[in-house]
Amino acid sequence: MGRLVFMTEGFGFYEMTNEIREWVKSLDLKDGLLTLFVRHTSASITIQENADPTVLQDLLKALRMLAPEEGGWLHDDEGPDDMPAHIKTMLTGVSLQIPVVEGELDLGTWQGIYLAEHRRAPHRRSMTLHYLGT
Amino acid sequence: MGRLVFMTEGFGFYEMTNEIREWVKSLDLKDGLLTLFVRHTSASITIQENADPTVLQDLLKALRMLAPEEGGWLHDDEGPDDMPAHIKTMLTGVSLQIPVVEGELDLGTWQGIYLAEHRRAPHRRSMTLHYLGT
Amino acid sequence: MGRLVFMTEGFGFYEMTNEIREWVKSLDLKDGLLTLFVRHTSASITIQENADPTVLQDLLKALRMLAPEEGGWLHDDEGPDDMPAHIKTMLTGVSLQIPVVEGELDLGTWQGIYLAEHRRAPHRRSMTLHYLGT
Repeated sequence: MGRLVFMTEGFGFYEMTNEIREWVKSLDLKDGLLTLFVRHTSASITIQENADPTVLQDLLKALRMLAPEEGGWLHDDEGPDDMPAHIKTMLTGVSLQIPVVEGELDLGTWQGIYLAEHRRAPHRRSMTLHYLGT
Repeated sequence: MGRLVFMTEGFGFYEMTNEIREWVKSLDLKDGLLTLFVRHTSASITIQENADPTVLQDLLKALRMLAPEEGGWLHDDEGPDDMPAHIKTMLTGVSLQIPVVEGELDLGTWQGIYLAEHRRAPHRRSMTLHYLGT
Repeated sequence: MGRLVFMTEGFGFYEMTNEIREWVKSLDLKDGLLTLFVRHTSASITIQENADPTVLQDLLKALRMLAPEEGGWLHDDEGPDDMPAHIKTMLTGVSLQIPVVEGELDLGTWQGIYLAEHRRAPHRRSMTLHYLGT
């Protein structure tokens, strides 16, 4: 079990693939299941294309369309980005599992692992890395 | 392996955190991976904020906007809430994994576990609790 | 660990329940956790109703509404269906876990497992089947 703590700079996708790959290497893991668990309700985790950075811009735009700030939300204690952040987290999820096969994360060629920050302001985010296997 | 059976009262988020925490305690689980698996196609499972109840009202509203009853859906055998329930289930998911660390669910401060009922009418819902670890 | 390789015929949901059930049987698996992991960023995996085929048509329509081709996306190198495919993948997910209980996939009566192809053109898709347990 490990924990990654990460400062975000507000809205955005933050690639964690290398950090996670290094963790797998450092523990000399062979075959098993890696769980990434984000311990928040306004940040999430997803696998996405890591080649063209405009993909990430478009994903942010899509999330903004799916969970607009102008939604007339009841819950707005922390500002107009508060409730949309919860909706975006529900849609993208906080728990992700990746097989480890022969010592490697079993990602496809174009897959990268991203922490998604759904709040405007920078936040300190904590993610658990949990492993079962050999 | 255990099973939680639960009667819902129609549309809504039903918090299960305490029931699940008690199950983990009762089996004296230490370190591993807990899977919650909802055996339905019109109810789902999600982690969300458990402090302000208006968050849950807004989440229901968001799901209604994303999967409106007035969608001109082909599949309407069981009424206008039938197909939207399947869409909401697809978007939020039926399988959720939570690490157990030193005998505790590894939830963040504001995270609660919710069964989401996407049908209007009360339903009997069944969820599998599956554990791997020590 | 196994791998399913599959040719899709473009947009659609492709049921994999039987192939996956046979894999579980062939290895004589008893109790554990099955992970299905899609190694792509424009195809995903979901559990849905497998009785009425119009459900699948409606799900495709819902995804098209949530991630329209006419979104003014920056990323369109491979055509108008390129970026919507990434958005649909983010919303539905590439990693899915199903408990295996007494040698059987723990699916509910109406649940089927579907690979979702989010590109117009046929694609070769690869999915990892990963198992932990006895």
